[in-house]
Amino acid sequence: MPLVIQKFGGSSVADAHHIFNVAKKITDVYKSGNDVVAVVSAQGDTTDKLQELMEEITDNACGREKDVLLSAGEQVSSSLLAMAIQKLGFPAISLTGTQAGFLTDSNHTDAKIIRIDTKRIENELKNKNIVIVAGFQGINENGDITTLGRGGSDTSAVALAAALHADVCKIYTDVDGVYTADPRNVPSAKKWSSLSYGTMFEMAHFGAQVLNERSIETAKKFGVTVEVLSSLSGSSLGTVITEKTPELNNTISGISLKNHLAKVTLSARENIKKYEEIIMSETDKIGIKIDNTMKSVGRQNKDIFNFVIEESSINDFLKLAKKIDTQNIQISYEKNKSEISVINISESLNLNTASIIFETLAEMNIDIEMVACDEKRVSVVVASECANTAINAIHSKLFEEDTII
Amino acid sequence: MPLVIQKFGGSSVADAHHIFNVAKKITDVYKSGNDVVAVVSAQGDTTDKLQELMEEITDNACGREKDVLLSAGEQVSSSLLAMAIQKLGFPAISLTGTQAGFLTDSNHTDAKIIRIDTKRIENELKNKNIVIVAGFQGINENGDITTLGRGGSDTSAVALAAALHADVCKIYTDVDGVYTADPRNVPSAKKWSSLSYGTMFEMAHFGAQVLNERSIETAKKFGVTVEVLSSLSGSSLGTVITEKTPELNNTISGISLKNHLAKVTLSARENIKKYEEIIMSETDKIGIKIDNTMKSVGRQNKDIFNFVIEESSINDFLKLAKKIDTQNIQISYEKNKSEISVINISESLNLNTASIIFETLAEMNIDIEMVACDEKRVSVVVASECANTAINAIHSKLFEEDTII
Repeated sequence: MPLVIQKFGGSSVADAHHIFNVAKKITDVYKSGNDVVAVVSAQGDTTDKLQELMEEITDNACGREKDVLLSAGEQVSSSLLAMAIQKLGFPAISLTGTQAGFLTDSNHTDAKIIRIDTKRIENELKNKNIVIVAGFQGINENGDITTLGRGGSDTSAVALAAALHADVCKIYTDVDGVYTADPRNVPSAKKWSSLSYGTMFEMAHFGAQVLNERSIETAKKFGVTVEVLSSLSGSSLGTVITEKTPELNNTISGISLKNHLAKVTLSARENIKKYEEIIMSETDKIGIKIDNTMKSVGRQNKDIFNFVIEESSINDFLKLAKKIDTQNIQISYEKNKSEISVINISESLNLNTASIIFETLAEMNIDIEMVACDEKRVSVVVASECANTAINAIHSKLFEEDTII
Repeated sequence: MPLVIQKFGGSSVADAHHIFNVAKKITDVYKSGNDVVAVVSAQGDTTDKLQELMEEITDNACGREKDVLLSAGEQVSSSLLAMAIQKLGFPAISLTGTQAGFLTDSNHTDAKIIRIDTKRIENELKNKNIVIVAGFQGINENGDITTLGRGGSDTSAVALAAALHADVCKIYTDVDGVYTADPRNVPSAKKWSSLSYGTMFEMAHFGAQVLNERSIETAKKFGVTVEVLSSLSGSSLGTVITEKTPELNNTISGISLKNHLAKVTLSARENIKKYEEIIMSETDKIGIKIDNTMKSVGRQNKDIFNFVIEESSINDFLKLAKKIDTQNIQISYEKNKSEISVINISESLNLNTASIIFETLAEMNIDIEMVACDEKRVSVVVASECANTAINAIHSKLFEEDTII
C-alpha cells in the first residue's frame, strides 16, 4: 500500500478549527487507500509561550531542560490532532519522538537524527492506524529528550520518509509552494513547479522559510521527493523538490529576505585578525550565527571588522565580547537591518545581477550598507524600513522579463 | 546518605515566584546532606487549560490520547523546576514518568503503578543530582503514556518512597497538615500531629483533599511514613501519617465536605431493583461515581431510587439513562448539594454522633436531604448554601470539648 508522509507546521494546527482542517487533509489521503504518517509541529505560539515561562525562571537554561520543556508542545498538538481524526471516525494514534523511534545525538536544542527505529510506526500502520508523530524531537542514547533546532519538524518528516521508504513527503505550510520571493512580501512573485535540491538549499539558507536547510540535505542524501503545499487552500499543486529536476544554470531562482538583523562593528588599533578568529570560534560554540563578515585593515589607524547577526543574539554577543577583551576593542551595533539575497547558481551571472541590484536601489535612494557576493548569491544589507520597497523593486527588475525565469 | 522524597502540588509551582520558593525548599534539604527526589504536579491551571483545548476538539477523547495530552503538563513544570534549582546553583535533572521508570497497567486516565524501575533515578542520585520527577504519569508495557487519575502525583511520590526505601515522603500542600476539618472552611479546626493510615484513608475517601486515597493505600502497603506540610509557610511541623500511630478508637477524626454534588431521583412503577443494578454497573464502567444510594419500594405505587453524583457527571449520566430505558423510569435531579461526613472509627459512637448532627442542624433550621451511615462515618446531604454554616456548627458541637479530641 502506498505510504504518504505529511508534515503540518504550527500555524496549520493553531486552533481547533485549523486542526480539523488538517485532520480532513489527512483522512482524505487515507480514504484514497494510502497509509499515512503525519508529522506535526507545536501549535501556533505554544513554543513562544513555553519560552516565556522559561525566561521568567532563567536566561541561561541548560539545553537538556530546554528540550524537555519545548518538546511538550508537539506532544500536545499531536494528541489533539489524533483526537480530531478519531472524532471524524478514523483510527489514529499519536507518538512522541521517543515512541516514534527518533534516535539523535546529544547536541541538545540542535540535535541531529542518527537513525529512526520504525518498528512501532510500522506496527501501527499494519493495524491500519493513521500515525501522528510529534515533530522536532527525539531521544539520545541516554534516554534524554532532544530537539532538532528551528524548523526541525521538516527534518523529522523528511527523515521519516527516507526511513519508511515513503513515496512522497508532503510539507504543508501557509504558502502553496516555493516562490521567486515570499508572496506575502512580493505579490508579483511566481511559483516554481519544481526545483532541484541544490537550488532549494540555497534559497532556504538565505532566508526562504518554507523548508529548513537540514531537511533538504536529508532529502538529497536519501533521494526523498518533497512537495511543498498549502495547508489552507484546496489546491494540490505545490512545488516538487526532487533529484529529477536539473540544477538551474545561469538562472536566478529567487530573492529571499532576512529581517531582524543587527550590523556589528568591531574596531581595534591593531591585530583585528586575532579578534576575528576568537569571535568566530566563540560565537560558533554558543550558537550565534555570524554572517556577511567584512574586514578592513589600517583604515584611519584602525582595523575594522563588520558583520551581521540576528538581533536576538545581540545581548549574548555583547556578554561574550566583554569576556574576550574590554581594553583594546570597541564595539558598536545598529539594529533594524535586513538582508536581501538574490539566489543565483552561476558566478558569471552574479556580476551582472549585482550591478542590476545596485542600480535599482540607487534609483530608489536606498542605501546599501553591506554587500556580500559569492558564486551562489548576491546579498545586500539595508535598513529594515526600506526592505520591502527594495525587494519588490529588485524582484520586478530581475523577473519582469519572461526570458529570465 | 539519607533520602528524602518531596511532593509539590500544582498551586505550589503555579508561577516563577512559587517555583523558586519550592526550589529553595528542595535545596535546603539537599544542603543539609540529603539525597532529594522531588515529585511535581502540573502548574496551577495547566491541566484545566489542556482540557479546554481537548474539549474544543471532542467531548469523547480516548483515554490513551488524553494521557498523552495531560502528561505534557508535568513535563513542563518538572523542567521549569529543574531550571530554577540550577539557577540557584545546584545540580538538578528532570525526568518524565517514562524516564523515571514508572511502569503502570494500561487503564488509561486511571492507571495503577505496577513497579518502578529506579535505575535511572539511582544513577542520577549517585551523580549528586537533585532529581525532579514528573508526577501523575507512567508508561505501560506497550510504551504508551498513562496517567494515574486525580491526585495521582501523591501516589507517584509515595510509590517512589517505597521503591527507593526513602526515609520519609513529604507531601507539600497549601494547608500545613491534616485538620479536623478543612481550615479554609472551618477556622476553628485543629491540626492532627499524627494519624494512622486507616483514619487518613477514611478522611480522604470522604472528601479531605490533602492526600488521595490510593497514595494512602500504597503508604500502608509499604509502610512509608508520609508527612503533610505547607509549601507556603516556613513551619516544618505538619501531620505525620505512619504505622506507628494507633488507629483511633471511639474518636471522631474529622469532618469532611464534598461540594458540587447532585441528588438524583429515579422512579419506576415497579422493578426498581433491576434498574438499580444496571445503573450501578453501567456508571461504574464509564467512571461515574454513585454514592449514598437509598431505595424505597412501593411508596405511592412507585419504587424510588435516590443517590448522589458529582454535578459534572450529570450530562453523562442522563445520556446513559436514556440508553437504558426511556419508557418506564422517570429521572429528576437537583444540583447544588453538599455532603458533610463525620469520620468515625466506631459503630457504637456513630449512633450518638448521628443524633448530635441531627439535633444541631435542626436547631439551625437546616434540612437534611439524605443520610448515610456505616461503621466508619455518618454523612448528611444538605443544600450547598447551608453547607458552610452546617459544617461549622457540627464541628463546634463535636470538637468543642477537649475530651473528645
